[in-house]
Amino acid sequence: MKTIFTEIIEGRIPCNLVYENDSVIAFLDINPASRGHTLLVPKEPVERIDQLSRDAAAELGAAIPKVCRAVMKATGAIAYNLIQNNGREAGMTVPHVHIHIIPRYPESSHSFSWNHGSLEQTEAVELAKSIKDSIVD
Amino acid sequence: MKTIFTEIIEGRIPCNLVYENDSVIAFLDINPASRGHTLLVPKEPVERIDQLSRDAAAELGAAIPKVCRAVMKATGAIAYNLIQNNGREAGMTVPHVHIHIIPRYPESSHSFSWNHGSLEQTEAVELAKSIKDSIVD
Repeated sequence: MKTIFTEIIEGRIPCNLVYENDSVIAFLDINPASRGHTLLVPKEPVERIDQLSRDAAAELGAAIPKVCRAVMKATGAIAYNLIQNNGREAGMTVPHVHIHIIPRYPESSHSFSWNHGSLEQTEAVELAKSIKDSIVD
Repeated sequence: MKTIFTEIIEGRIPCNLVYENDSVIAFLDINPASRGHTLLVPKEPVERIDQLSRDAAAELGAAIPKVCRAVMKATGAIAYNLIQNNGREAGMTVPHVHIHIIPRYPESSHSFSWNHGSLEQTEAVELAKSIKDSIVD
């Protein structure tokens, strides 16, 4: 599955690179929500994060603090959000795993909040058991 | 820095557990945005993800696909979002790193979109260089 991110990873399409190693690449989003909005992308070409290999996911995780520290330092942002969408119905546009690192400034107006529901305990016990039983090592 | 998540990790406050290993714990959010809304939490007690050690971040990353697969399988959700807020200004409520895994269903109305800005190339080159120069291994 080749997307524009494969083209960027393979160097055929330019990007504003901020970090790269054997497993991940990070570059500025061309349609930023705020100054310094960065995409952190595993080189493994899968659509959803649940499809990533354990190794690729561990390398992606290890890169998060490193890239976030640099984004915060360079921008002076006071806080930030990570957003990672899986599936078109969840707002994913490029079908290759990517994490949005979105800095927040005092004047920022973006919001990623939701309506807080409640958890009915009898149903919660069943649901948690069902998820737990679905864990595969 | 002890939060309610430390209490959950140490077993003094109950949770609807879905996964646990030496480095992470995952449980149902008590104020879910949707059915199966799960929190994935590193046991290392830091506030922001940029403060996580490399090892804890790699273990957190490695756990993401595993927990997401189980949430999707048990709920039958068609897509999902990961949201991770850093700093109160970014909507963080409990100051201990946590990733929201939020399943999406055909009837879901939550949205995590933003206004797409544009990236002026001269400024982008400078900003990318500034972030790149701030990367510390």
